[in-house]
Amino acid sequence: MSGADDAVRLARAAWSRLVEPGDAVAGALLAALGPQEALAWLRAGAAPPVAAVDDGEPGGRARAAARLAAAAERWRVRLAGLDPRRELWMLERVGGRLVVPEDDGWPDGLDDLGTAAPVCLWVRGAADAGRLLAGSVAVVGARACTAYGEHVTADLAAGIADAGRCVVSGGAYGIDAVAHRAALAVGGRTVAFLAGGVDRLYPAGNADLLEAVLEAGGLVSEVPPGSAPAKVRFLQRNRLIAAVTTATVVVEAAWRSGALSTARRAAELLRPVGAVPGPVTSAMSAGCHRLLREGSAVCVTDAAEVLELVGPTPAPEPATVPRPGDDLDPVERRTLDALPVRRAVPEDVLARTAGLALPEVRAALGRLELVGLARREGGAWRR
Amino acid sequence: MSGADDAVRLARAAWSRLVEPGDAVAGALLAALGPQEALAWLRAGAAPPVAAVDDGEPGGRARAAARLAAAAERWRVRLAGLDPRRELWMLERVGGRLVVPEDDGWPDGLDDLGTAAPVCLWVRGAADAGRLLAGSVAVVGARACTAYGEHVTADLAAGIADAGRCVVSGGAYGIDAVAHRAALAVGGRTVAFLAGGVDRLYPAGNADLLEAVLEAGGLVSEVPPGSAPAKVRFLQRNRLIAAVTTATVVVEAAWRSGALSTARRAAELLRPVGAVPGPVTSAMSAGCHRLLREGSAVCVTDAAEVLELVGPTPAPEPATVPRPGDDLDPVERRTLDALPVRRAVPEDVLARTAGLALPEVRAALGRLELVGLARREGGAWRR
Repeated sequence: MSGADDAVRLARAAWSRLVEPGDAVAGALLAALGPQEALAWLRAGAAPPVAAVDDGEPGGRARAAARLAAAAERWRVRLAGLDPRRELWMLERVGGRLVVPEDDGWPDGLDDLGTAAPVCLWVRGAADAGRLLAGSVAVVGARACTAYGEHVTADLAAGIADAGRCVVSGGAYGIDAVAHRAALAVGGRTVAFLAGGVDRLYPAGNADLLEAVLEAGGLVSEVPPGSAPAKVRFLQRNRLIAAVTTATVVVEAAWRSGALSTARRAAELLRPVGAVPGPVTSAMSAGCHRLLREGSAVCVTDAAEVLELVGPTPAPEPATVPRPGDDLDPVERRTLDALPVRRAVPEDVLARTAGLALPEVRAALGRLELVGLARREGGAWRR
Repeated sequence: MSGADDAVRLARAAWSRLVEPGDAVAGALLAALGPQEALAWLRAGAAPPVAAVDDGEPGGRARAAARLAAAAERWRVRLAGLDPRRELWMLERVGGRLVVPEDDGWPDGLDDLGTAAPVCLWVRGAADAGRLLAGSVAVVGARACTAYGEHVTADLAAGIADAGRCVVSGGAYGIDAVAHRAALAVGGRTVAFLAGGVDRLYPAGNADLLEAVLEAGGLVSEVPPGSAPAKVRFLQRNRLIAAVTTATVVVEAAWRSGALSTARRAAELLRPVGAVPGPVTSAMSAGCHRLLREGSAVCVTDAAEVLELVGPTPAPEPATVPRPGDDLDPVERRTLDALPVRRAVPEDVLARTAGLALPEVRAALGRLELVGLARREGGAWRR
């Protein structure tokens, strides 16, 4: 893995300690100044570099300056005890590595979070996190799941792992644990995104499972080693799972459940979301039915339907045979991603879905048809 | 009930015997010539009155003539033994009445079937079928249902009947029977649409139940007394259930199930369709999940969600106490129909849903708020 130099790495490790996950002000600042210059500014205690975070609205400069000043106050509280070298050493001691956006191995999808993207990832296992997580599928759900939920989760996760895709979950009790375990059982790959530091195998009751996940896949967190899995961090962790995966499936969730936040974030990021139906008499399916009623998720009942959600593009393997579609340009890729598998849709609908101009979509469809990735049906198109 | 004279009634009874349900050629012929003239033409064996069934396409006349001639061949086979007086007498003997499109009591919705609309209805019970069926909800599903399906059906049908709406089903074993029974149990109204004649209480095992349905609501068929419930008639009967009700709910259905045909017909007719989810491990829920995946149905988990499908407009009662909203003008009525029950929506969304201009919607909302039918929440509105 090539990429960032040590200074950038160290600066990002520092920011990871200074700010709470999902801090959009920090995200904007780092994007504007870069992590090193931003850190130097914070240490210097100088006047806010407002231009860097100006959002272009009328009065935006003044508001941005005030917002940045307030945020810097929060961040400076943690400047005193800051020692990213020590945290990097803690990570190294447990065999981990810091992955930063400047690295080639930075996973796809996270940058879709914009200013809420993580400043870095603290990773154990997962020698190449980017490759491992490409084409991955999130399987999430209630901690207090039912035997039905366990059964379905095991079935789905095994099928997803069998198809060569990494199963991503949160390492929690219930659905999460069953998802990791099922992927492991079929010799598949699985990654747990933790709300606390990757040196802490939390919850303790899942320590053995998380050790096994570490071997077969990896543990990932955006907070440094030693960080406690505070409640707000669980919600922020969910946004990472939503962003880093190609699709999210909720197996069981109560009416108010953290898994719903993962699903809604995934839907906001235009990732496909699946919800597994269950008995209407089961409170643990109420959240899934809620997603279906809201139209935030499609109904999925088995692994094949989950795999259909993410489309036929296989997860890239460490050594891949070249395939048609590997060399698509971004417009062709977006057009392909927008193409439905089952029902053909007209070009203008496709353009709207892909967010492309009609001539672009037409040109891309021509080439996709040529390489056998798109099929014309009457005036409409499908994969 | 006022309406058609005896000659029209007799001619329609004859056509009901001559043609199979859903015969679109007959539908077009009757619409063009009227039942009496059409019958006279058929008896005379004259050249096809092509102009009457010309579909306006190029070469349409010749094709229509051929189609009509072929259909007339089929129909004439039954002319020999035709005796509608006898069938009307059979109906009268079991206390029934013929209801024809020319009657005031012809149920709403059936005419949406176009040329596939029934030529008449043979009705037992249901003194005013039109009133009884207005605002009704279909609850349909598998004959071989599970205990789960029975439980949910009983819950839904009782809730629908409790809300003053007639529960419509097909009188079959399984979900149908439970739906009728649950409506009866709460003193509600229920109607069974039969695939055979209304003089035959089919299936025999449901005879007592169908007697009770007759007392509390009615039995309806488009085929004359004495007709056998042939397989094709079940599918055609489903289209009547789909058309005559305000919404259709499928509780349990196998992957291939007649209930799915009812749901799809209802969706084609732009009626709201609900599907009850269940365990993905249950073959009896596979059809419901199929509808959800296809987007033909929305997920419904209790009676309140079913009632939300059809909107709050109450079914007209034979003797109603005046209620707020009875005297709404068409614009107010459309605005009210577009107003969601659960989530408040902004005025412009409402205007789009109702297909009205923004100022119209604003004026209507003002009056609806005044009579307590609309509630403002911030800048948005709900019921």
